[in-house]
Amino acid sequence: MDCLDRKGLIYDITRVLFNHGLNIISNDEFVDNQLNHFYMRAEVEGELDAEQVIQELYTVLPGGVNIQLVPQQKKNIVILVTKEHHCLGDLLLRYEFNDLQVNILAVIGNYPVLESLVARFSIPFHFVSHEGKTREEHDEEIAQVVQSYQPEYIVLAKYMRVLSSGFVAQFPGRIINIHHSFLPAFIGANPYKQAYERGVKIIGATAHFVSNELDEGPIIAQNVIQVNHAHSARDMAQSGRDVEKIVLAQALKLIFADKVFVSGNRTIIF
Amino acid sequence: MDCLDRKGLIYDITRVLFNHGLNIISNDEFVDNQLNHFYMRAEVEGELDAEQVIQELYTVLPGGVNIQLVPQQKKNIVILVTKEHHCLGDLLLRYEFNDLQVNILAVIGNYPVLESLVARFSIPFHFVSHEGKTREEHDEEIAQVVQSYQPEYIVLAKYMRVLSSGFVAQFPGRIINIHHSFLPAFIGANPYKQAYERGVKIIGATAHFVSNELDEGPIIAQNVIQVNHAHSARDMAQSGRDVEKIVLAQALKLIFADKVFVSGNRTIIF
Amino acid sequence: MDCLDRKGLIYDITRVLFNHGLNIISNDEFVDNQLNHFYMRAEVEGELDAEQVIQELYTVLPGGVNIQLVPQQKKNIVILVTKEHHCLGDLLLRYEFNDLQVNILAVIGNYPVLESLVARFSIPFHFVSHEGKTREEHDEEIAQVVQSYQPEYIVLAKYMRVLSSGFVAQFPGRIINIHHSFLPAFIGANPYKQAYERGVKIIGATAHFVSNELDEGPIIAQNVIQVNHAHSARDMAQSGRDVEKIVLAQALKLIFADKVFVSGNRTIIF
Amino acid sequence: MDCLDRKGLIYDITRVLFNHGLNIISNDEFVDNQLNHFYMRAEVEGELDAEQVIQELYTVLPGGVNIQLVPQQKKNIVILVTKEHHCLGDLLLRYEFNDLQVNILAVIGNYPVLESLVARFSIPFHFVSHEGKTREEHDEEIAQVVQSYQPEYIVLAKYMRVLSSGFVAQFPGRIINIHHSFLPAFIGANPYKQAYERGVKIIGATAHFVSNELDEGPIIAQNVIQVNHAHSARDMAQSGRDVEKIVLAQALKLIFADKVFVSGNRTIIF
Repeated sequence: MDCLDRKGLIYDITRVLFNHGLNIISNDEFVDNQLNHFYMRAEVEGELDAEQVIQELYTVLPGGVNIQLVPQQKKNIVILVTKEHHCLGDLLLRYEFNDLQVNILAVIGNYPVLESLVARFSIPFHFVSHEGKTREEHDEEIAQVVQSYQPEYIVLAKYMRVLSSGFVAQFPGRIINIHHSFLPAFIGANPYKQAYERGVKIIGATAHFVSNELDEGPIIAQNVIQVNHAHSARDMAQSGRDVEKIVLAQALKLIFADKVFVSGNRTIIF
Repeated sequence: MDCLDRKGLIYDITRVLFNHGLNIISNDEFVDNQLNHFYMRAEVEGELDAEQVIQELYTVLPGGVNIQLVPQQKKNIVILVTKEHHCLGDLLLRYEFNDLQVNILAVIGNYPVLESLVARFSIPFHFVSHEGKTREEHDEEIAQVVQSYQPEYIVLAKYMRVLSSGFVAQFPGRIINIHHSFLPAFIGANPYKQAYERGVKIIGATAHFVSNELDEGPIIAQNVIQVNHAHSARDMAQSGRDVEKIVLAQALKLIFADKVFVSGNRTIIF
Repeated sequence: MDCLDRKGLIYDITRVLFNHGLNIISNDEFVDNQLNHFYMRAEVEGELDAEQVIQELYTVLPGGVNIQLVPQQKKNIVILVTKEHHCLGDLLLRYEFNDLQVNILAVIGNYPVLESLVARFSIPFHFVSHEGKTREEHDEEIAQVVQSYQPEYIVLAKYMRVLSSGFVAQFPGRIINIHHSFLPAFIGANPYKQAYERGVKIIGATAHFVSNELDEGPIIAQNVIQVNHAHSARDMAQSGRDVEKIVLAQALKLIFADKVFVSGNRTIIF
Repeated sequence: MDCLDRKGLIYDITRVLFNHGLNIISNDEFVDNQLNHFYMRAEVEGELDAEQVIQELYTVLPGGVNIQLVPQQKKNIVILVTKEHHCLGDLLLRYEFNDLQVNILAVIGNYPVLESLVARFSIPFHFVSHEGKTREEHDEEIAQVVQSYQPEYIVLAKYMRVLSSGFVAQFPGRIINIHHSFLPAFIGANPYKQAYERGVKIIGATAHFVSNELDEGPIIAQNVIQVNHAHSARDMAQSGRDVEKIVLAQALKLIFADKVFVSGNRTIIF
């Protein structure tokens, strides 16, 4: 839950939980002093009248309240891909071996190249070509496939097209993207070629929520890997793939454990 | 504070704080499920009858209780050194420019080589030679100098002698050490030579509490740096110095902000 | 190639290559001053009378000479596994999508649990149980399967049994292992439980050649990942798996590109 | 040296060195295939007729030749600072204790605040205020002080003013800068505030040559440090300072060992 901050909040919240006989087995709070906003994540155990607890919490909390009460269980997702396999393959393996608290309901690709990989894990693959369609038409087609699965999250595992604002608006705070990052940033085509020509010494990846069609949304996880002058653009891309797949998996692990709060354009991660 | 865990603890604690009109501006809890032990760090603001608050907390908390109520202010320390300058120099600069919440009251060396460096920062330096003395005699001499300053912490900034158990027992949980670490570990003289000959690819440093004369105590911070076959033993030692000074400073920043709890042989760091 | 060091070596070697009309497109040298030994890796292009070139090189080089002249092509390997999937799965994907210069000829497991995963990549899986056999008997059985494939390298992708010295002696310098590493090192069962109880702040992985049944051989690649007190032993193991699979792949990439020289118990990596 | 690439280059170069009785104790080459350019760094020992050797090398090398023949000795530098102490302090300590192959001839500040620190290391400090001067006037004044010391390199240790193109042109390839880096990049005032508000998870630093007044020049070294939502903008700045000082020192170590070649807008580092 999150809400405006005021004195006595934790006391008031924990009283509600205590009166319902709930045991707090893990608790984290954070106050954003700039926004005067309070964030709290509690793991509780006990028999729970969810509706009643939430209603009581609303009565004790000041304004700006969001409360989510979610059971600890696997999250349902749909994955969007283009041609690159590394993030998808990593997620398929983690799903198969229960390394992530996730059910992969389906994979959608704007190219068919990854269909055979997905098939080996007995997951439906939908090829939705973008050819001959406007962005809006294509996105609408994808949205229909996505909606048919009712997923909790949509994961862009190297989906190389910009999503329309209409698509993003249908899934607010529920789309996660992974992309390469560089110091300095490179805009335009073939960033690894640019990175090579600029002689960067580290290559990074950023996992973030997609907040609208153009800008990056709140950052969830970032990491980097060292490269040097002997790395060709192709070597750099290969190193980049390794950091991308690990960073995406780290971000998803946090999200699927309900540990990520979004506050404006940043995340609070417990 | 920390104590045995039970249902309703946070509620009970925050009620005491609330009834005293204290505002919690930052709060962290952790439950060690294996030990069934509860840890909590709260930053509060407001006028505080410390004795009364602590007494009330003792009445609501179950067994195994430790409570520390400390003002947010600089910690007083004494530093022990041998001949190496890198950790000492880094701490002197941070002290001089208020980069650490610390007062360096004095530096004690079993060699005099760092005296002139310390003098430039107008801090007393005590040369306490170990020559011709038993370990216990030497440690007793150092302990007397240390005690004369009444420091809250003793920082071993590359103090290259093993402290006697008698010395350690005088300052329980208050001695912090930094030392190089390797994968695998190298025992005996000249670890960097051994690391070179073994061809390690990373070199690390570990900051930890000193819990007795032989074993390492609870780890506070660790980090590593990449090396390769072209690094001589001397290069490796130089890389090691960089990671040592940063790791020690990170550990001290956490300790001086009262964010480090010790639980058996491990630390809980908020 | 590597040999004793002396003045004029590079001149002599490059003269041989030049006289054969070979173009050096990449060249690296290293002199181990302690051993007075010279290492050189050259990538050449041109038509090559390999036998003649090697013979001429032997005539110009001083003692202690090793020369390997290998074409740039995929290496053939056999993988040994037990029950853990993460390194194997990562290698299968890299193989499938040509992310490693490798042909995986077969996978051998002392348990059958990974058979279905391997089958999806159309690679033979051999279940060679260790039950009811001595170590030597079991290793001999595995060696026969391995030998039937004539692989250039054997990769232990979380093969959790110690190989007998007889087995290791059959494949000198050709067995690569990945294992978790900690600071400090933990010996015995369940290292992640020990790491949790010790409160380590980083978890590492080391890829190395297997030089005999007990000791670790020359280190090829190492890396670490940060953990904290909130990581359970299970979380630590999960973090460890991520670093293990990346480090193993990095090591194999270097080996398969013939960039790794072994010198005593260390590696020279160009 | 560097020059256009062609077959037989290493052979030709090493013949010249061999004929002069020079022993190559370390040798590195790199070919930039995109530019068809060859880079080589050799450490040689022996009695050396420098002029003669260079002249002979020019006769064997194809076009685009640069040859530098430098003795292994400390480099003379002048440091420019503004108000921040962390990079300057770190360099002063390394200079004092011979941790860098460097002579610090003087420090120039556009504020006087660091004068007392510099004085403790018996190094001249020049306060050259920028107030009431155009950028060109101020830079000219600084240039005169710099020129009076005849340094080999100018190190910007958090010098917070943009240098005029006229100044930069006087010291081509000899000015090194350190600055914070972020993913994504933040432009304008108070980047750490922006980084906080964006919720970045890593903070980096980049050491680079200054190639003109506006753009960044060739990158020498980069590194990052992890941060999280609980880091205030002030905490992030503090973490940033640690990575800045280490990255600057790493870059200078490479430069002072003559291991850094500049190729267009990138560096080749041996």
